Amino acid sequence: MRAGMERRSDLIGLSPQALRAEIRQAHWDGPTAGLASGYAQANLVILPQTFAYDFLLFCQRNPKPCPVLEVTDPGDWRLSYAASGTDLRKDVPRYRIFHHGQVAEEVTDIEDIWREDFVSFLLGCSFTFEAAMIRAGLPIRHVDEGHNVPMYRTTLPCRPAGGFGGAMVVSMRPVAREHVSRAIQVTARYVLAHGAPVHVGDPTAIGIPDLEHPDFGQADAIYEGEVPVFWACGVTPQVAAQHAKPPVMITHSPGHMFVTDLRDEDLTIW
Amino acid sequence: MRAGMERRSDLIGLSPQALRAEIRQAHWDGPTAGLASGYAQANLVILPQTFAYDFLLFCQRNPKPCPVLEVTDPGDWRLSYAASGTDLRKDVPRYRIFHHGQVAEEVTDIEDIWREDFVSFLLGCSFTFEAAMIRAGLPIRHVDEGHNVPMYRTTLPCRPAGGFGGAMVVSMRPVAREHVSRAIQVTARYVLAHGAPVHVGDPTAIGIPDLEHPDFGQADAIYEGEVPVFWACGVTPQVAAQHAKPPVMITHSPGHMFVTDLRDEDLTIW
Repeated sequence: MRAGMERRSDLIGLSPQALRAEIRQAHWDGPTAGLASGYAQANLVILPQTFAYDFLLFCQRNPKPCPVLEVTDPGDWRLSYAASGTDLRKDVPRYRIFHHGQVAEEVTDIEDIWREDFVSFLLGCSFTFEAAMIRAGLPIRHVDEGHNVPMYRTTLPCRPAGGFGGAMVVSMRPVAREHVSRAIQVTARYVLAHGAPVHVGDPTAIGIPDLEHPDFGQADAIYEGEVPVFWACGVTPQVAAQHAKPPVMITHSPGHMFVTDLRDEDLTIW
Repeated sequence: MRAGMERRSDLIGLSPQALRAEIRQAHWDGPTAGLASGYAQANLVILPQTFAYDFLLFCQRNPKPCPVLEVTDPGDWRLSYAASGTDLRKDVPRYRIFHHGQVAEEVTDIEDIWREDFVSFLLGCSFTFEAAMIRAGLPIRHVDEGHNVPMYRTTLPCRPAGGFGGAMVVSMRPVAREHVSRAIQVTARYVLAHGAPVHVGDPTAIGIPDLEHPDFGQADAIYEGEVPVFWACGVTPQVAAQHAKPPVMITHSPGHMFVTDLRDEDLTIW
């Protein structure tokens, strides 16, 4: 922990606005899981304007991995819908900078590299449906074990748009067989947070050879009586960008999300 | 009925593909309501590529009036998702051509004015949720009376994008008070066909002074024990375009929809 940093326990119970202020003032650069409980967190993708149409179309064509919450006007670091008083250049704990689709560095603020042609996309995040599962009494292994969710590249094709393409990335949660139907129903409502699972039961059917070796995050054991359940994952656009190879793209760092003012319930259909 | 035209009764029971073939061969230029039952029909909006990003963003910001089913690549009159073997220049019974946001003419094919920079947007249509209401035993006044649904400009603001803006247009159906909750539940599932109502009960609350004078379509009587229920309407993008004033925009003519190969159920969340 660096000087001036808060402890995570000091952040519990803060409103989204207060939490973003701590992050903006560089008092927190850690993960956001479990913070601002009840409020939706979001994936962030920032691209030059010349890539914005193709990326927005990619999201329209692949709404389960890429559920769009808000798109900013070019150069604008504020939001008009998902949060107020924001500065997207500073309000995310950690950013990843990609050059030509490859991770180049990780930083805690992007003010000095901000460009007037940057368009920011906020996409719904799995924390929203995980909170709903927990409210329904469905345990989540990786949350209970305190590590990142296991994520896998699949052979499920995304519908391409311009240069953006590739396969869908999914996250996996082991679910007790008697809870599978409920897990699907509980998460399906959150259409702006990946919604219902894309596959239940057979990893090899979607091109995952070995659950013990996830492509991102950490593996989870699957116990007797449990079924692996797969949801579309917000890492998908990063893989899509490896196809489009934009000269620059900026995202949040995994687990270090943008915390919105939207309630989790705002990401349901209504 | 012009020479070579089919009678409507000859079209009942045709598959979407066969119906589009009749339309393409100029054997039918009438309304599509009730045809290809079980398959989703769609609003069509064609714009020059320079307006495509702003319009796609307008749809993302206003998903209830503008639920996007598919966006074509520039110049492409085929579809890759919603239907196969299509020619969007001929497969709609009647097109409306707008110049600078105003209706200029109505034609039955647009092959001669097609441009390589045209991008086509298919948007979900209320026929889908009306079919679901009918399946649920909820009567629909304008269907029973065989006229077009009454539509109204409201004071509900759309979230603007580029030049596209203005207020939401809604359609109104009288619903028996004891059926209101069911009507909401039945239609809410069809998130890609306007979904749940945007207002129930008080037209003046959304800026409609007089239900007897709709801005589009024909008025419906509201009987004792009925409540006016308002759904977001696919005419909204035509009003939005009156703000953006694109030099050219082409849509279907009201009620003369594009018939897709998608089943109505494909327009639910899943």
